[in-house]
Amino acid sequence: MDNPFLVEVTRGHLVESRHRGSVSVVDAEGATVLSIGDVDRRVFPRSAVKALQAIPLVESGIADKYGLTDDEIALACASHSGEPAHAAAAQSMLSKAGQDVGCLECGIHWPMGEAANRALAASGGSPSALHNNCSGKHAGFICLACGQGENPKGYVLADHPVQRKVREALEDITGACHSVEKSGIDGCSIPTYAIRLPSLAFGFARFGTGLGLPGEGKAAAARIRKAVARHPFMVAGTGRFDTKLMECLGERVFAKVGAEGVYCASFPELGYGIALKADDGNARAAEAMMAGLVLRFLSLSDNERKVVEALAQPVLKNWNGIELGQIRPTAEILGTA
Amino acid sequence: MDNPFLVEVTRGHLVESRHRGSVSVVDAEGATVLSIGDVDRRVFPRSAVKALQAIPLVESGIADKYGLTDDEIALACASHSGEPAHAAAAQSMLSKAGQDVGCLECGIHWPMGEAANRALAASGGSPSALHNNCSGKHAGFICLACGQGENPKGYVLADHPVQRKVREALEDITGACHSVEKSGIDGCSIPTYAIRLPSLAFGFARFGTGLGLPGEGKAAAARIRKAVARHPFMVAGTGRFDTKLMECLGERVFAKVGAEGVYCASFPELGYGIALKADDGNARAAEAMMAGLVLRFLSLSDNERKVVEALAQPVLKNWNGIELGQIRPTAEILGTA
Repeated sequence: MDNPFLVEVTRGHLVESRHRGSVSVVDAEGATVLSIGDVDRRVFPRSAVKALQAIPLVESGIADKYGLTDDEIALACASHSGEPAHAAAAQSMLSKAGQDVGCLECGIHWPMGEAANRALAASGGSPSALHNNCSGKHAGFICLACGQGENPKGYVLADHPVQRKVREALEDITGACHSVEKSGIDGCSIPTYAIRLPSLAFGFARFGTGLGLPGEGKAAAARIRKAVARHPFMVAGTGRFDTKLMECLGERVFAKVGAEGVYCASFPELGYGIALKADDGNARAAEAMMAGLVLRFLSLSDNERKVVEALAQPVLKNWNGIELGQIRPTAEILGTA
Repeated sequence: MDNPFLVEVTRGHLVESRHRGSVSVVDAEGATVLSIGDVDRRVFPRSAVKALQAIPLVESGIADKYGLTDDEIALACASHSGEPAHAAAAQSMLSKAGQDVGCLECGIHWPMGEAANRALAASGGSPSALHNNCSGKHAGFICLACGQGENPKGYVLADHPVQRKVREALEDITGACHSVEKSGIDGCSIPTYAIRLPSLAFGFARFGTGLGLPGEGKAAAARIRKAVARHPFMVAGTGRFDTKLMECLGERVFAKVGAEGVYCASFPELGYGIALKADDGNARAAEAMMAGLVLRFLSLSDNERKVVEALAQPVLKNWNGIELGQIRPTAEILGTA
């Protein structure tokens, strides 16, 4: 099955590049709301499921035991830009568990945010694992290990109690088998399990509504959604899509990017979960698709619509500020076909 | 017509992302050697034609009049990383024409090379137009204007004598009409004209062989190819694909990347010109396709093969150095289908 074109990139009067993809929107009972393309092809959810991976930390009571704040819980769900506030919150989470940066097993990279990257270089500094975009998730894993009285060492490995718990949480909420044969290793060294888009969407429909979750799971999901809605900066960073979208829409949308063109979201007021992937792994396509689905499904005020349209159909300008073209979701995404 | 999958990106045992595209390989008489996908769809060549855009500068004798060196001629064809040697050579070209950085109309951006970017920030510096990846091409345009006794001001505009000359050179070598209705504005503010891949490939077959070009054009093409083969660093930069490929293969290959997944090349010993585009505009796909075509068409020594295979099928590692997967051209590119 050939996935359809879902995003176009224009230059002048022509379409310069095109992105194909697949989309699944389901409700919290698992009924299909929208299905585009080959949704049965397994995808690696990558960082799009960080919020689901944070459920055991909150559900277990360990987040409360360590007094994690809302911005720290939001950071546990983040692919952050490595700005000073992100690194500081990751450090704080580790301290609360009696640990330090040496415990992080995510690896070191320069801040993902360009300005933060250069500011760190200009200060004569060099990056630590705290600047890794996944440091908050990893600090959460370390809290989970320590809170359970386990040695955090090796917490990234599939058979460590932390990853077993996280995998179990993913299986519980998505209802999909997370099998080793269909797994790969993520950029931050933890396992990522390939599942079907409708399973992923179902997980986010349940995350957004709590429907079908046990009491603690329901409370944990609500707490995580609220934390991110209150601190959308912590989940991404300056100028980033997720931050802008949730700054605009608050608890009406939970959205999270994953690498290789994956995006997941919950629209709690509709009970919908959304999972999508751009075939080619391109983030600009996944973002335009996600913003296009927000335009399609949610009632927006004029101001909200303006913000979301700018995310769905960004105008491309060059270094001299001249307008070159536009990224835009196709009618198939917008539901205007 | 659906373009085929030409590049796969794997993770674990699964294919995570896939890139479609089209490829045209023609000889210097315009005969088709290989055609994959919809090659009649017009593409913007973007920076892939910088070497062709540099022909008027050399052909006119102005490069010699100003005593441009081989590394400066190579820089005129470059999408460089903004490393100190690149900025210095652009500055030198401008000085030779009696001009300075204030004349450049390409706009300012931080060095494209990550290390150069951070080094500039760490030194307390800020970027100038000399760091723009197109500064060499623009310095060449300014030399062309001044050498012809024209005011360089506005040299990026379609109706300035410089752009008229450049457009004429592109039409002459590709044999394709470069029409305003099918044009767009490039990242550096000059016009870019959408043409069919076989026309683009034909231009590079003639650029690589000189066949069908007037005497001065033939000499200019040879001079440009030699200059780039001697200074492959100047055309891209540290760790970059074009630099590595031409460091390895010298004059046997002229290859140049363009934005949005375009790549062009000449294989002079075979008389072939190559033009390709990844539908989605992704550079990793265009690179793997180009390296795959080098493997397919050229006889390589064991050492050369090792270098080109590493470019065609790079292993993907994470921040901890763990192997995650691979980028790889499909059998359709490699000719093993």
